[in-house]
Amino acid sequence: MARLQEEKVFKDPVHRYIYVQDTLIWDLINSREFQRLRRIRQLGTSYLTFHGAEHSRFSHSLGVYEIVRRILSQFERSGFGDLSEEERLVCLCAALLHDVGHAPFSHSMEKIFGEHHEAWSCRIILGDTEIHQILSRVAEGFPEQVAGVICKTHPNPVAISLIASQLDADRMDYLLRDAYCTGVNYGTFDLDRILRVLRPLKSGVVVKESGMHAVEDYLMSRYQMYWQIYFHPVTRSAEIVLTKILNRAKTLYEDGYAFAFMVEPIRRLLEGKLSVEDYLRLDEALMQAAFSQWMEEKDPILADLCERFLNRRLFRYVPAEDISGFLFEQLRAELAAIGWDPDYYLEIDFPSDLPYDVYRPGQEDEKRPILLLGPDGELEEISRRSEIVRSISGIHSGQNQLYYPAELLQDKRLPDGVRKILVNGIRKS
Amino acid sequence: MARLQEEKVFKDPVHRYIYVQDTLIWDLINSREFQRLRRIRQLGTSYLTFHGAEHSRFSHSLGVYEIVRRILSQFERSGFGDLSEEERLVCLCAALLHDVGHAPFSHSMEKIFGEHHEAWSCRIILGDTEIHQILSRVAEGFPEQVAGVICKTHPNPVAISLIASQLDADRMDYLLRDAYCTGVNYGTFDLDRILRVLRPLKSGVVVKESGMHAVEDYLMSRYQMYWQIYFHPVTRSAEIVLTKILNRAKTLYEDGYAFAFMVEPIRRLLEGKLSVEDYLRLDEALMQAAFSQWMEEKDPILADLCERFLNRRLFRYVPAEDISGFLFEQLRAELAAIGWDPDYYLEIDFPSDLPYDVYRPGQEDEKRPILLLGPDGELEEISRRSEIVRSISGIHSGQNQLYYPAELLQDKRLPDGVRKILVNGIRKS
Amino acid sequence: MARLQEEKVFKDPVHRYIYVQDTLIWDLINSREFQRLRRIRQLGTSYLTFHGAEHSRFSHSLGVYEIVRRILSQFERSGFGDLSEEERLVCLCAALLHDVGHAPFSHSMEKIFGEHHEAWSCRIILGDTEIHQILSRVAEGFPEQVAGVICKTHPNPVAISLIASQLDADRMDYLLRDAYCTGVNYGTFDLDRILRVLRPLKSGVVVKESGMHAVEDYLMSRYQMYWQIYFHPVTRSAEIVLTKILNRAKTLYEDGYAFAFMVEPIRRLLEGKLSVEDYLRLDEALMQAAFSQWMEEKDPILADLCERFLNRRLFRYVPAEDISGFLFEQLRAELAAIGWDPDYYLEIDFPSDLPYDVYRPGQEDEKRPILLLGPDGELEEISRRSEIVRSISGIHSGQNQLYYPAELLQDKRLPDGVRKILVNGIRKS
Amino acid sequence: MARLQEEKVFKDPVHRYIYVQDTLIWDLINSREFQRLRRIRQLGTSYLTFHGAEHSRFSHSLGVYEIVRRILSQFERSGFGDLSEEERLVCLCAALLHDVGHAPFSHSMEKIFGEHHEAWSCRIILGDTEIHQILSRVAEGFPEQVAGVICKTHPNPVAISLIASQLDADRMDYLLRDAYCTGVNYGTFDLDRILRVLRPLKSGVVVKESGMHAVEDYLMSRYQMYWQIYFHPVTRSAEIVLTKILNRAKTLYEDGYAFAFMVEPIRRLLEGKLSVEDYLRLDEALMQAAFSQWMEEKDPILADLCERFLNRRLFRYVPAEDISGFLFEQLRAELAAIGWDPDYYLEIDFPSDLPYDVYRPGQEDEKRPILLLGPDGELEEISRRSEIVRSISGIHSGQNQLYYPAELLQDKRLPDGVRKILVNGIRKS
Repeated sequence: MARLQEEKVFKDPVHRYIYVQDTLIWDLINSREFQRLRRIRQLGTSYLTFHGAEHSRFSHSLGVYEIVRRILSQFERSGFGDLSEEERLVCLCAALLHDVGHAPFSHSMEKIFGEHHEAWSCRIILGDTEIHQILSRVAEGFPEQVAGVICKTHPNPVAISLIASQLDADRMDYLLRDAYCTGVNYGTFDLDRILRVLRPLKSGVVVKESGMHAVEDYLMSRYQMYWQIYFHPVTRSAEIVLTKILNRAKTLYEDGYAFAFMVEPIRRLLEGKLSVEDYLRLDEALMQAAFSQWMEEKDPILADLCERFLNRRLFRYVPAEDISGFLFEQLRAELAAIGWDPDYYLEIDFPSDLPYDVYRPGQEDEKRPILLLGPDGELEEISRRSEIVRSISGIHSGQNQLYYPAELLQDKRLPDGVRKILVNGIRKS
Repeated sequence: MARLQEEKVFKDPVHRYIYVQDTLIWDLINSREFQRLRRIRQLGTSYLTFHGAEHSRFSHSLGVYEIVRRILSQFERSGFGDLSEEERLVCLCAALLHDVGHAPFSHSMEKIFGEHHEAWSCRIILGDTEIHQILSRVAEGFPEQVAGVICKTHPNPVAISLIASQLDADRMDYLLRDAYCTGVNYGTFDLDRILRVLRPLKSGVVVKESGMHAVEDYLMSRYQMYWQIYFHPVTRSAEIVLTKILNRAKTLYEDGYAFAFMVEPIRRLLEGKLSVEDYLRLDEALMQAAFSQWMEEKDPILADLCERFLNRRLFRYVPAEDISGFLFEQLRAELAAIGWDPDYYLEIDFPSDLPYDVYRPGQEDEKRPILLLGPDGELEEISRRSEIVRSISGIHSGQNQLYYPAELLQDKRLPDGVRKILVNGIRKS
Repeated sequence: MARLQEEKVFKDPVHRYIYVQDTLIWDLINSREFQRLRRIRQLGTSYLTFHGAEHSRFSHSLGVYEIVRRILSQFERSGFGDLSEEERLVCLCAALLHDVGHAPFSHSMEKIFGEHHEAWSCRIILGDTEIHQILSRVAEGFPEQVAGVICKTHPNPVAISLIASQLDADRMDYLLRDAYCTGVNYGTFDLDRILRVLRPLKSGVVVKESGMHAVEDYLMSRYQMYWQIYFHPVTRSAEIVLTKILNRAKTLYEDGYAFAFMVEPIRRLLEGKLSVEDYLRLDEALMQAAFSQWMEEKDPILADLCERFLNRRLFRYVPAEDISGFLFEQLRAELAAIGWDPDYYLEIDFPSDLPYDVYRPGQEDEKRPILLLGPDGELEEISRRSEIVRSISGIHSGQNQLYYPAELLQDKRLPDGVRKILVNGIRKS
Repeated sequence: MARLQEEKVFKDPVHRYIYVQDTLIWDLINSREFQRLRRIRQLGTSYLTFHGAEHSRFSHSLGVYEIVRRILSQFERSGFGDLSEEERLVCLCAALLHDVGHAPFSHSMEKIFGEHHEAWSCRIILGDTEIHQILSRVAEGFPEQVAGVICKTHPNPVAISLIASQLDADRMDYLLRDAYCTGVNYGTFDLDRILRVLRPLKSGVVVKESGMHAVEDYLMSRYQMYWQIYFHPVTRSAEIVLTKILNRAKTLYEDGYAFAFMVEPIRRLLEGKLSVEDYLRLDEALMQAAFSQWMEEKDPILADLCERFLNRRLFRYVPAEDISGFLFEQLRAELAAIGWDPDYYLEIDFPSDLPYDVYRPGQEDEKRPILLLGPDGELEEISRRSEIVRSISGIHSGQNQLYYPAELLQDKRLPDGVRKILVNGIRKS
């Protein structure tokens, strides 16, 4: 594959510049499927909590690419590993494209319509798309290789380590970028230092022992971002309202409701019959436009929920430390009795049910753990060496919360016992 | 008006925190008209050039409010001026709401549909809106006062200075915020220092003489941001494609074309009969959703332009240093002759035709100039004292550019003379 | 006490500006005793490890003052507590002057010549000094009050909390400043946020419960700075060489050695008879000048050690995880046997023996712990609520190291067994 | 020359990390002559105005080295120029060592004792020093080559461009570092961008035309730093007091005065007979120690001036816009008449007499100007293309100031006419 005659750069607030040296990468960035990521926010509904969180998956994807580019360039300069030119390109493409299958407001979408974004990323890479055409020009089977890295079936563990492990370019970019855009400083860690201590082994990328403290710092950042940003209850509240909108629309559609506003890709979404082409037409602009139109639907629940989302009249929340299934069913029944549909106006949220995580080595569905490389080539999982990592790994501070519309409290029909719970929450005795 | 029981804060990447102390401000932020600003980007199409430029007018408006809050709090602490409590609130509200009338992709919109966003801001403040209700609670005539500051008819020049002068909170926030989000560092200047040297006189806000260098630095930042960010030719290219879309849609509408996709607020826009309510339904999500649907319209020009905008296949540009009206007409005729409608596929752009400006005291439509306050109370316009300001003020470095689709060059029917101009541009001899 | 006619400011890289509003503070800053702090580095010998660590206690002291000023101003604005004007000034003066008694290269000095810098700070405040004169102008007993806060005998626990507790202005400034100057980013935490959640109770300053995560972040920063910066083994090596110089000079002096270079304050130091006036003449410029002259002393040990310190030929180090007293004595004997004085050329360092610490509530000599203030006024020590703090508090990761001159390894007389230990260190089996 | 087995790094607050890959560079950094730069401040007396300005020439020299390293590595990667390995090392060494000949408080020293620091740098490189030994190991004549670059006699203009031109690594590092340490943000510009547009021609390093705006920004930064930091009148005041101390000591020495405190290198300095070895013993620690001891000299002028410098009782200043030689002589006479020696207690300062400068192409003693490289290889001096550079180049805003001790005004013998001038200064009519 050709190198660009002259290196191209993108100005980036996190990495200063993003450098593009390969025609292949340049063409991928200019494909319509990649440009679509400009219309999907990196942090979903977080902008309703942190107004700075308006950045897109486009920016983040460039950042992940740039980190992988720097790692590979460092490996090359230092003579570590022995990636072929084709393997190098596979890694760069996988880094750039790992999120290309993200739906608008991904988390809520995945919850309702099933299927992970990785699966869609692979479908887009392998389907009838500009990206597929561009990748196919490199070599036969090249798109399959790129998809293989993203779906973790690729035989080279170094490639997978770079974009899907506990210390991958994906996490490194999003922690730094989300911190930068929201303005918090929990997310900062010494990226340069970490890049310098990575070493590619046959079994994957590991960390030189001397870099342990830098990795500790990265994991502490991640821990703080996890609780301060990603799990913020106001963001959860927005997610819940959004999920309810999608649920309501799906139910109405299945019941044959006549939508005043409907467009093809959303219809296919509600039907559960999205083609790759349909999927690519879905973006946050379209969803928000639909919600805006749906504010005038005849169905009062759909109209109300859409109005809540767009005008940020989110649900109120109280701690629900110790709510039993029985109690929750009772609450639902009481709401239903006075005319509030509990399917749409009551929710308990368990923060652990989320795509972000703290580092918990040893759990089953765990991504590749972080291994330290000792002076004699021995490998050790970091939490065995670092007390601080060990202690972070064991912490489960998430709190269940009960969500409902604040207006409920104004409803005079609300029984006193229920009101008390809604106002105070349920504390562990 | 009541103070909040406990100060509320927003985390902000530029000002660290934004502090809200008044119930009034809190309620305005939560109004649906203000929340709409989350769906309008601060920098219009700049995100297509600088991927970080994804921030909204919502963030910027909070920033302008915060700067004015700090200035007024400084005036109060130092015993400068003697603003009443109501005047203080007028200033804060005007700062917060000064952009509330922005349309999606404002600049292109204003160009085609006339009317400045300030006029719409005032209409929203005075119309049947949540904002109007909230402001009316303060005192009779209070909404009119706030509108008066924004439309520059308010009798208090201090209020107007704060949000509409050459050194106002609007410019101070946008320079810092646009620099932060794009990642360039031209836009940084010493905000704290400038805030400390502002003094409110009867005639407006002026700058203590000792702050001259800080203001010079601010003006140099502005100069750099002007040429590096706001006038970037790629951004101009995106603006041109966008303007052509709107023009085409308007023409088609007026010709009775049957749009496959149309929604009410856009119909009213094309008719030129927008009510405040319609206007508030227009946002960038809706416009982008429409463009996305219009990619499948039967009209090939509309479909093509929309595809260009969304997938970022913008127009190519070459310098047009010395293009005469005659030559331009000739180029148009040659394009028309081979089937490219020159109304949609050729444009000359004069960068000076823009809402940003360098500081040029003495021009007629000029905003309040920057005055230095000497030790004996004398006032002097800054460019009389500062050679650097004088020299920046006189610079007109904008370059006219000729824009056209790169595909034109592939068209074999294109006459050689035209191709030569399109490839090389027209240089001054 | 008068306010300054016009607020004065110092440009500061950490806090942007430091604001001086009181004549008293302005005069103290200009006193000769305070100006002396410009000649004492904040981080002692750390500049030999991190070249950016060249900042002085002068800068740090201004920073501590500024943080206390902001806290008190916040308390005042919010109507918290009820400090009188005199108490306010006591707090500000104590913040500014808390380090005024620091010796050059404090840690080594204190180790050899006894007496803590706090004791000297109080002596300077109460002695025949410019500072004493300035403070005396405020009110009778005012210098005693300021000294009382620094030596922790003052009856107002709020004052003591501000400059001598686990979350005091001293630590907050030095973590931020040391991180800024060295260029590491471990030390950053959200100062604004912490200042906003502090509350003055009768019993001292506590933290509003909602600020727990911000305090966690501060403690994690402190943990990282502790291990990455303050305990860095190269810095320890420089401290050891320095301590040996002072020890050697003291021994020579006591033995009646005729120094080719000697000045009065150093003579008095070696005699152990420093007056306040002598003490104030001691600064790092003088000590370095003496070391530079002593490089030409006849005593070979003193000359060698001074040369090592100035030209940064520090001692080499190896881990000494499990060294017994017996083994150490044996090593000393073997060195002595071949002519290397083990008093000056061998050392074991226990990093815990240092003025910095992680947060370990419950230990005897502990400073005031950090208390969280719940919604109903209940107080709880933070480590009972925060798992992350609990885990940091328990970590003792310091490693003992064995230090010696690298040249020893070139000495052919060195027994093989000793050489092996010096090269590899002693690992726990 | 060997590469280091493993790259070494220094943590740096400005460049994040400084990378050392060559044994040669590592050894030079560890030489005693280079370590001495830790004891010489980068900004001389500026720390008395900006307390953050405590950084040393050691830090700066590493920074200059790092910038040159990056430029050369960029040239190599892009295939620009064709520097041999030896030429590469010459450039790196010259960058690292260009300031090795700096005296303590260089500017004042050079003024009184003649001879530029470049001459001393060359003497140190060519003399009997560790640096000379290390450089000699590379190749015969290698030290001469390095000295040749620093003294601008080297035949390769690329090498000279890198460390001694209007856009050299020296200036780029000091602007960024001085801005960082003082905390002002005038000094920031886009270093990465500038490094990317440099191109090595036969005639020296030039700038790709597209980088013009980045260079404009750099020159504006320089302009601001020049007036805000380097020419600050308080710093000038400290320089004046320092110069007077040295003058007084020299005069006393020449008059045979018996100093109570004297050390060898200072004696040789006053005699004007410094050897390289003497010179290397001079550092700011020694000078400050001497001043501290001299505060107790019998000569009242020397004692007073030293006390002023150490305790920061600097001279007061007033504008002297239009002072004639005649008037100045008259003022001197009047001071002498009442017992104030005008040689030591009165001074006029012309700020242009300084080692910093704005960019003024075309002046005789000018360093290499900045050339823009057009698309067809044509070169043009930047001020011909950039109006902003043209306007900065022509500005001479420096103001002459009259300096004197504030205590003069308390002297009742002072004639009224003189007092009036000292209080108000002399304004242009």
